[in-house]
Amino acid sequence: MTKQTEKIQIIPLGGLGEIGKNMTVFRYGDDMIVIDAGLMFPEDDMLGIDLVIPDYSYLVENKDKVRAIFITHGHEDHIGALPFVLKELEVPVYGTPLALGILQGRLKEKGVSTADLHPIKPGDQHQIGSFTIGFIRVNHSIADAVAIYLKTPVGTILHTGDFKIDHTPVDGQVTGFHRFAELGDEGVLVMLSDSTNAERPGFTKSERCVGESFDEKFRAAQNRIIIASFSSNVHRLQQAIDAAFKYGRKVAVVGRSMLNVVGIAMELGYLKVADGVLIDISEINNYPPNRIVILTTGSQGEPMSALTRMAMADHRKVEILPGDTVMISATPIPGNEKLVARTVDYLFKQGADVIYDSSSGIHVSGHGSQEELKLMLNLVRPKYFIPVHGEYRMLKLHAKIAQDLGIPKENTFIAENGSVLEFTADSGAMVGKVNAGALLVDGLGVGDIGNIVMRDRRQLSQDGILIAVIAMDKENGCVVSGPEIVSRGFVYVRESEQLMEEARAKIQEALDRCEASGSSDWGTIKNSVRDILGKFLYEKTRRRPMIMPIILEV
Amino acid sequence: MTKQTEKIQIIPLGGLGEIGKNMTVFRYGDDMIVIDAGLMFPEDDMLGIDLVIPDYSYLVENKDKVRAIFITHGHEDHIGALPFVLKELEVPVYGTPLALGILQGRLKEKGVSTADLHPIKPGDQHQIGSFTIGFIRVNHSIADAVAIYLKTPVGTILHTGDFKIDHTPVDGQVTGFHRFAELGDEGVLVMLSDSTNAERPGFTKSERCVGESFDEKFRAAQNRIIIASFSSNVHRLQQAIDAAFKYGRKVAVVGRSMLNVVGIAMELGYLKVADGVLIDISEINNYPPNRIVILTTGSQGEPMSALTRMAMADHRKVEILPGDTVMISATPIPGNEKLVARTVDYLFKQGADVIYDSSSGIHVSGHGSQEELKLMLNLVRPKYFIPVHGEYRMLKLHAKIAQDLGIPKENTFIAENGSVLEFTADSGAMVGKVNAGALLVDGLGVGDIGNIVMRDRRQLSQDGILIAVIAMDKENGCVVSGPEIVSRGFVYVRESEQLMEEARAKIQEALDRCEASGSSDWGTIKNSVRDILGKFLYEKTRRRPMIMPIILEV
Repeated sequence: MTKQTEKIQIIPLGGLGEIGKNMTVFRYGDDMIVIDAGLMFPEDDMLGIDLVIPDYSYLVENKDKVRAIFITHGHEDHIGALPFVLKELEVPVYGTPLALGILQGRLKEKGVSTADLHPIKPGDQHQIGSFTIGFIRVNHSIADAVAIYLKTPVGTILHTGDFKIDHTPVDGQVTGFHRFAELGDEGVLVMLSDSTNAERPGFTKSERCVGESFDEKFRAAQNRIIIASFSSNVHRLQQAIDAAFKYGRKVAVVGRSMLNVVGIAMELGYLKVADGVLIDISEINNYPPNRIVILTTGSQGEPMSALTRMAMADHRKVEILPGDTVMISATPIPGNEKLVARTVDYLFKQGADVIYDSSSGIHVSGHGSQEELKLMLNLVRPKYFIPVHGEYRMLKLHAKIAQDLGIPKENTFIAENGSVLEFTADSGAMVGKVNAGALLVDGLGVGDIGNIVMRDRRQLSQDGILIAVIAMDKENGCVVSGPEIVSRGFVYVRESEQLMEEARAKIQEALDRCEASGSSDWGTIKNSVRDILGKFLYEKTRRRPMIMPIILEV
Repeated sequence: MTKQTEKIQIIPLGGLGEIGKNMTVFRYGDDMIVIDAGLMFPEDDMLGIDLVIPDYSYLVENKDKVRAIFITHGHEDHIGALPFVLKELEVPVYGTPLALGILQGRLKEKGVSTADLHPIKPGDQHQIGSFTIGFIRVNHSIADAVAIYLKTPVGTILHTGDFKIDHTPVDGQVTGFHRFAELGDEGVLVMLSDSTNAERPGFTKSERCVGESFDEKFRAAQNRIIIASFSSNVHRLQQAIDAAFKYGRKVAVVGRSMLNVVGIAMELGYLKVADGVLIDISEINNYPPNRIVILTTGSQGEPMSALTRMAMADHRKVEILPGDTVMISATPIPGNEKLVARTVDYLFKQGADVIYDSSSGIHVSGHGSQEELKLMLNLVRPKYFIPVHGEYRMLKLHAKIAQDLGIPKENTFIAENGSVLEFTADSGAMVGKVNAGALLVDGLGVGDIGNIVMRDRRQLSQDGILIAVIAMDKENGCVVSGPEIVSRGFVYVRESEQLMEEARAKIQEALDRCEASGSSDWGTIKNSVRDILGKFLYEKTRRRPMIMPIILEV
């Protein structure tokens, strides 16, 4: 073995310092493999942006080295960037059947017609380049989630993916404790582990607890039951369907993604529904209210979702009736609190009984809390530790937990997207940085929206725009028409005639000044208009609209 | 007593269906009095807006009838609209000394030089018009908070204001239980009560618990302690100062509003500080780190606040040092979660030990939970009940609590801003609506920003603007210059030359079509440009910028 081959590099391209757009590269010599390729939703200040994916230019630059992409499970923050990445990289993708099923839907939506998809299952091992890659079952808020380990000539690397430890999972498939312990015994060089709930003490409750709460609520409900949940939480849906069956209710499904996932999950056998239980949403009025359950999207209060439309009395097929029980079987993702609260308010106004708070037992997290993180650390006992999948404070707390369990501080790495971590059998260090960051997707544009456009949108959103148009004679530089002023988003135009009149006078003043000083350069004239007008408008309104002078040559 | 005088009207102008901008009008014949006049901060979709106050046009229309404004305490959501209201209404304002002290600061900032302010205290009674108005002490997250009762010829009305029931308040001033019970015995016709925590089971913890947590954290801290809190929470500040004194630390205060309130509260005797404990922020480096406490603003992660600046290493006087203990003694107001999380992340990055979660004991709510709401209802036993100060679901839950305690459903009113509730000694009903809603304040403009401006800002924020300028000969309607195209916030201009070239061709096409069909009307031409260009750009980019055709006549 040459010196060269004794190193392995781990390069997170997404998911560090943030929740979302997970992507990590593992490099050994000329072989690269990637785990996950997710998206995230835009921050509040990313105006007009549809979604955000990792800057994967590092992969494009190393196209010839990327051997495969592995996905740990089918959530958007792990697969959502694939439709973009696969347009530029021809590379096989490995994942469990449900993850690939969901991915196929996404690829179709985005017009990616060919993809080289390989189903895997826990226990499998694949040889790819110098890596031997294997999968271990974990529990999460989606079925068919796995941790991934990579055996390399330098040592074994384990990426937990998103996980919780559920001793009573709905599908009976418990976490692969033995396999984790076995790997730990053999020796794990580096572990990367999910930090989402590193702030939360104790254990995360079993998904089965939600089933018990459903049972209790179903027993009490006198009329229809409407359950909003993430469509990908197949076990949650299974429990709702089981409760419906037990209490003699029919189940109707509404919302595009819910219909999609239910279809895929039934087809693949992840969701088991007795004959005759499912009905079409258009049939719900053929049954008495106490015989109906509706499964719907919209647990995040998304404005266009089915539940929000019902709440606003704007859904084509479902009208909320007084006495309906609506359960929001999810917690708001940070940033969505107000949307969810608004939806709850409107549901109450329609007369529904709304069950939505975290203490009601109708939701549990899909991520392990501190005690589960400790258990994973103690099972695996890695030499080096990299907390991933979390905002900075979560990574920090997770690192602290590892240190409390005896992993030396110098062996824990709080990295950033783009950090290059290099390990040999007995050393680990951050050795550099590669390009990483956020690619903003807006309509058909991927990564074309940069700081300038974003800054302009921000200014426009705050105080609008004022456009001043002047026509100048190209021969002598005299103003032959204008200044014409138009504004949008600045003041109510009909009530601001005087302000606009004064603004026109200010522009004239700027033009006169330029003439007096002999400047006929357009740049100078525009700057002068911008300055004088800007000061004037701020003084009069304390607002700073974008001021856009346009000179037309005639 | 004539029939006319036997009715009393209660008209909430703010605070119903929302948290913030509280304002309620009480009318008996030709006498109106107002309780509270607050502001709220803009919702996410109110782009560019600084703050929001109640539409008080009903008061302006009834100028001659408004006898007085009473404020329950000095929080912004109860006093923040007064600088605006008092510019249009000459009316006395009554409040406790601390509330008036804080109000005076606000009035000065907003350039209101004369105001007729009257200090009151619990136990006082004032005769105003046909009302006898009295005050009862309550506990809240600000000192000097009161409930207000109005004795009228029809019956007694009680407005609890914001309250919690704190059996061990920091200043020893417990809630006026006896007075509430006495009023209840005498008979209360209508009660309006704070619904903020109607969703929360149990009791809200005593403010004193925070002092105990401070003590514990102070004992453990090895270096500097930095505490961020709401400046108006004088008891919280008192407890921090007491802990500092006990552990031999000096206290420095930073942040404009914190300095203001500490000044006012010390002057009025609400804050008691031993000599030599307070030092100027510029002196902190003269002491060893374990001798320093810094009290700061920024508990909501506000971008310009002192704590956020420290976190971003951008504060002129305070640099976060590794080992500093930072306590965020507040919970994020809904909508601020991400700002607070970001601040915590940056503080951790600076090496601070950050204590921020709700389980750490360094914050308690200022509003009563369900058991306290029940106690208030049972002490007062009103005939009619109006839950106030809360979003719809909170009002609904509070009404349900009242009904569970035996107040008939038909005697509880879930009202809206602008609802006119009319009561006689033995009847109550919603009888109408008056103008109410939100006045948006943007710079110097109050209420001038309406739907059109807001809609334009929203469109501009999403996809920017594209301006197309054409100069036309006024004689023959021929294009003599242009189309000139300028865009902002739409695409990155330097990389979109071809798109702009094609857009120019599309405009030409629109102009040609108009010419061919003989339409020379500018409106028709502009619409045609907007349509053709809009379709083209959406097809090419899936974005919908505002398209603004401008025709200049030369």
